[in-house]
Amino acid sequence: MSEMWDPVGVAVVGAGYWGPNLVRNFLACESTDLHWVCDTSLERAWNVVGRRSTVRATDRLDAVLEDTAVEAVAIATPVSTHGDLALAAIQAGKHVLVEKPLAASVQAGEVLVDEARRLGRVLMCDHTYCYTPSVAKLRALVHDGELGELHYVDSVRLNLGLVQADTDVFWDLAPHDLSILDFILPDGCIPDAVAAHGADPMGVGQACIGYLSMPLAGGAIAHSHVNWLSPTKIRTTVVGGSRRTVVWDDLHPSQRISIYDRGVELAGVLDPEEHRESQVSYRVGDIVAPALPEREALQGVVREFARSIRETRAPVTDGEAGLRVLRVLEAATRSLANGGALEPVAARV
Amino acid sequence: MSEMWDPVGVAVVGAGYWGPNLVRNFLACESTDLHWVCDTSLERAWNVVGRRSTVRATDRLDAVLEDTAVEAVAIATPVSTHGDLALAAIQAGKHVLVEKPLAASVQAGEVLVDEARRLGRVLMCDHTYCYTPSVAKLRALVHDGELGELHYVDSVRLNLGLVQADTDVFWDLAPHDLSILDFILPDGCIPDAVAAHGADPMGVGQACIGYLSMPLAGGAIAHSHVNWLSPTKIRTTVVGGSRRTVVWDDLHPSQRISIYDRGVELAGVLDPEEHRESQVSYRVGDIVAPALPEREALQGVVREFARSIRETRAPVTDGEAGLRVLRVLEAATRSLANGGALEPVAARV
Amino acid sequence: MSEMWDPVGVAVVGAGYWGPNLVRNFLACESTDLHWVCDTSLERAWNVVGRRSTVRATDRLDAVLEDTAVEAVAIATPVSTHGDLALAAIQAGKHVLVEKPLAASVQAGEVLVDEARRLGRVLMCDHTYCYTPSVAKLRALVHDGELGELHYVDSVRLNLGLVQADTDVFWDLAPHDLSILDFILPDGCIPDAVAAHGADPMGVGQACIGYLSMPLAGGAIAHSHVNWLSPTKIRTTVVGGSRRTVVWDDLHPSQRISIYDRGVELAGVLDPEEHRESQVSYRVGDIVAPALPEREALQGVVREFARSIRETRAPVTDGEAGLRVLRVLEAATRSLANGGALEPVAARV
Amino acid sequence: MSEMWDPVGVAVVGAGYWGPNLVRNFLACESTDLHWVCDTSLERAWNVVGRRSTVRATDRLDAVLEDTAVEAVAIATPVSTHGDLALAAIQAGKHVLVEKPLAASVQAGEVLVDEARRLGRVLMCDHTYCYTPSVAKLRALVHDGELGELHYVDSVRLNLGLVQADTDVFWDLAPHDLSILDFILPDGCIPDAVAAHGADPMGVGQACIGYLSMPLAGGAIAHSHVNWLSPTKIRTTVVGGSRRTVVWDDLHPSQRISIYDRGVELAGVLDPEEHRESQVSYRVGDIVAPALPEREALQGVVREFARSIRETRAPVTDGEAGLRVLRVLEAATRSLANGGALEPVAARV
Repeated sequence: MSEMWDPVGVAVVGAGYWGPNLVRNFLACESTDLHWVCDTSLERAWNVVGRRSTVRATDRLDAVLEDTAVEAVAIATPVSTHGDLALAAIQAGKHVLVEKPLAASVQAGEVLVDEARRLGRVLMCDHTYCYTPSVAKLRALVHDGELGELHYVDSVRLNLGLVQADTDVFWDLAPHDLSILDFILPDGCIPDAVAAHGADPMGVGQACIGYLSMPLAGGAIAHSHVNWLSPTKIRTTVVGGSRRTVVWDDLHPSQRISIYDRGVELAGVLDPEEHRESQVSYRVGDIVAPALPEREALQGVVREFARSIRETRAPVTDGEAGLRVLRVLEAATRSLANGGALEPVAARV
Repeated sequence: MSEMWDPVGVAVVGAGYWGPNLVRNFLACESTDLHWVCDTSLERAWNVVGRRSTVRATDRLDAVLEDTAVEAVAIATPVSTHGDLALAAIQAGKHVLVEKPLAASVQAGEVLVDEARRLGRVLMCDHTYCYTPSVAKLRALVHDGELGELHYVDSVRLNLGLVQADTDVFWDLAPHDLSILDFILPDGCIPDAVAAHGADPMGVGQACIGYLSMPLAGGAIAHSHVNWLSPTKIRTTVVGGSRRTVVWDDLHPSQRISIYDRGVELAGVLDPEEHRESQVSYRVGDIVAPALPEREALQGVVREFARSIRETRAPVTDGEAGLRVLRVLEAATRSLANGGALEPVAARV
Repeated sequence: MSEMWDPVGVAVVGAGYWGPNLVRNFLACESTDLHWVCDTSLERAWNVVGRRSTVRATDRLDAVLEDTAVEAVAIATPVSTHGDLALAAIQAGKHVLVEKPLAASVQAGEVLVDEARRLGRVLMCDHTYCYTPSVAKLRALVHDGELGELHYVDSVRLNLGLVQADTDVFWDLAPHDLSILDFILPDGCIPDAVAAHGADPMGVGQACIGYLSMPLAGGAIAHSHVNWLSPTKIRTTVVGGSRRTVVWDDLHPSQRISIYDRGVELAGVLDPEEHRESQVSYRVGDIVAPALPEREALQGVVREFARSIRETRAPVTDGEAGLRVLRVLEAATRSLANGGALEPVAARV
Repeated sequence: MSEMWDPVGVAVVGAGYWGPNLVRNFLACESTDLHWVCDTSLERAWNVVGRRSTVRATDRLDAVLEDTAVEAVAIATPVSTHGDLALAAIQAGKHVLVEKPLAASVQAGEVLVDEARRLGRVLMCDHTYCYTPSVAKLRALVHDGELGELHYVDSVRLNLGLVQADTDVFWDLAPHDLSILDFILPDGCIPDAVAAHGADPMGVGQACIGYLSMPLAGGAIAHSHVNWLSPTKIRTTVVGGSRRTVVWDDLHPSQRISIYDRGVELAGVLDPEEHRESQVSYRVGDIVAPALPEREALQGVVREFARSIRETRAPVTDGEAGLRVLRVLEAATRSLANGGALEPVAARV
């Protein structure tokens, strides 16, 4: 897809796990022109760039930030460095894309949002899943009323994961589920309370297994199970409604989304004196798996980043979306410290 | 399998959802001889017995309890009636098998256990899953140390379930997971605290979706997700250990049990200053799906019932096992009323 | 479902692998009344009847055939005995249901069909799969034109099967696929030629692995893979059409039937000089898995048997249907002997 | 993996479907240095190279063949052009890698093999699957005797495929299965006869659905089902042996290879007079899914190409392997023209 404007000059900071994916997608995108790959390890940066490329590798962030051809910077470094690096880039006048989570604390995230607004820069959070055809479909089904009233959102995200020293499994994996929840729920109604239960059976020093329970408006509930210690990989989200229920199984490429026209029907609050059969009935209808395009979500991320810059507007997953996710994460951390008690999610003052 | 002793004369009380399964299995078992099927609806009892049978149908429990050919009674009625019916049967001198959960309260369950002990009768709880080859294998793997130290037990039990007026989803479905946990954990170490989160998005009057979190000794955790509103049927339990992890998928008949020789290896508590790669490693070994016999669990239940009667011993899932499950359920109910706070599971005084 | 007429008095001959299923279904059916179970082994017959039944067990077929209460006989014995037993029953004035295949040869089958017609008795072949909701749906989709023109029918039926001395894998398993094909194809258009390839790698004395290719009208093809030596169990049939394609996976209970609105579109015969892209396009639409009732096919078989008797009409899978399957099997046997050459399927003179 | 020698200078000819994959893998391989991408469409070549590359794009094959920095050429063009392009490259002194099938006829393939031998150039056929960890495991299991005697090889390769004007489904898809068969069978014992059944239900002008049956030594059989008209994608190969059976499901990334310790045991040729139970028994053992590395097969192809050049030896899948596949394809084409008759596979004189 060709655009009317010049490609956006970009640099990628961080050549570890996620950076190479950003590099590949910036190179493949017509709307962006990649100039630099920067990493604390020059060798790592070089390896990502490769022998046959005119992209420059460096271990000097200054060189990148001083380059006027670089209009935008994508940051894919450890979470603890997001705040400082993103702030430096914004203050150098760059638009910024930050890998999730936006920062290591709500406070650090708020500094980024405020500074980007003050300087008129785009601040985007790489909530990659929001750019998949599957999540777009989930959102449409919720927003168009196809599911009826929302009953529950249940996410499971398991893997033999990257046990980390500077972050627990909640901060590592739950941002995916929380950003999806933020994206698909009506009016961005993120949960206003959360209870977290975790376990560190290996003695790593922080939770490797985690469960989040989040009451939602109208008696509904959201729940997320994240786990670094599972030998099997599972990525499913079920969104249950009064009319239909959607199952998203991201690892089932031929049928990622299944819409079940099934449910329980009630005549009202059950009366224990009456026969159940007269009060409860079941609807067992068809399953429909809608055709979805196969495209890489990250290509959507880099294009939205470029477009929001050229159109001087907020991106779909902007700094505020990143902040909303951070607020739930901080509340989860408090709940964990309080034995799993339900903690309120602070709204921004 | 023929036994040395006469078959045990039995009666089934309750011809609703589960009763017919008990009838079929008592008829197929060489160690039992079914005399009666009893239900408040005589027609329902007749339908279960059928035209070509010499088993008698009745709606009079007295007739059953007065029949001296009846040595044992199996009760498959609504939970709220378990206590009174089982007590009547015990006091009439019958051995008793009760569908799970044992009773509607810990107190009612304790009365049964005490009275059965006083009168020297067998009291067995129909924890059906404990008699499957899969759960037997799970137990053996845990007890033989094949899994190493226990890290987590995660159960998911979803269905378009029987929404009920006199019980919530925890009391309906969680007894399966709790009885399995009780059976497979070393030394019957049932959890000593539980946090419950539930939702009633349809306004039924009680939870239709539930999550139980149970800290276990040594930093491990057990978690159970039970749900009546799912359009898909899922029955899986994952038991994660330091050496191996077992996935039990009960709806995958050709490979119910998969043992993963995979895991995360640590050199100790992680030091954030060190590179992760030097401290964490992954073991990716084979998956083994052991051959398991295909046999109906309920056949094992009725045979164990008969044997424990003839051998005058406690059955594998005795009244005490039923009580341990009830105590977790009552603590879960308290937690639910307290906004999900962690509640201690009272031990018997 | 209650009928207006008296239940049909029946007897089951053969208490081996399939007989007990017939017994169970005759007992459960309101339209039939089971009187006898007959087997060359009296013990086997007794075991099927059970302790608490008023059904009689016997090893004397005469006793069964002489009993005037017995109006109909179901035969579930080895294939080689079908012809003689069914003939004896018909000549004794009984209606007859025969397990597939109808007989061990076309000639033996023709004798049965002729004699049943002469004496005005119902002759039914137990083509069980034709009574499943899945095959009923397949037939409806083909007949209603939902699939467009038929392109192919591909069946796979694998199992660690019952290697047999008196029959090969074609005669054992292919009757399922051929009877389904006979049932779903328009106008009962059974293939008019067949090529068979087989293998006997264990030296059993006959084919344990088999492939049948059958050209169909309009350039379409039917193919069946049957295999006794597979460690995995597979039962799938794909019916491909110009508009839609249906996949029936009988071992996937939550989604047995999937209708794919997908296909290749052509502008005509391809011109190698033109770019493919301008001549071929793809349609990638939704997958729909229609809700199907869960019911036992054999219950449909016994009810259809009873109804066709009381309504004095041919059953859906009558002797002629059984004959059509036999004719393909005999042609396959000839093809096998001729190195896989395409053999015509003889029509009845 | 770093090598002791200089990287091999390479060019890719053909920037259509497969060429970009070759480009990406040559760029990622330390043993190769990509200089050119050549296509009849210069724009297509440019698009593959991309904006930020020093690789040159061209539509002039001469320029590539005249470049002395180019030691080797990889050809990924339509099949009908393989012979001429590869011959030109060999005669220009280049080593050549050709996408499967090697050429459009045995004769054309033989010319390439002879000419490469005469000029001492490496001629390699891109039998990609032979470089997957799965096929390597299959080969090892067969060669190490783990499976016992070979009973059958059954392949299914379905897709909504690229219907083509200049090739049928046999020549498009069966080379995968035939090259795998050639690779895993002991002593490269490729089948010596083949029967082909095909269908062209859309009137494309050539077969879109195909079945190949190939008797193997010792009573075994190989069979391949290839299909362009399937809405579902299937890629499985089952290798059945007397001791174990392996199922390779290439689209099941978490368990691609499953080894079943299951089978049928016989006491000899079955005697129909004896009870089957006394002559046949079943072995139902564990399933083992060995841990396999996840790596891209094409990376193995380009590395083997480079190594065979530097080590002046034949590659694993050399021109002879390509020829053996061509001979089966030509025999299949003859069988198809002869109504499916078994055709001998001509050996090279």
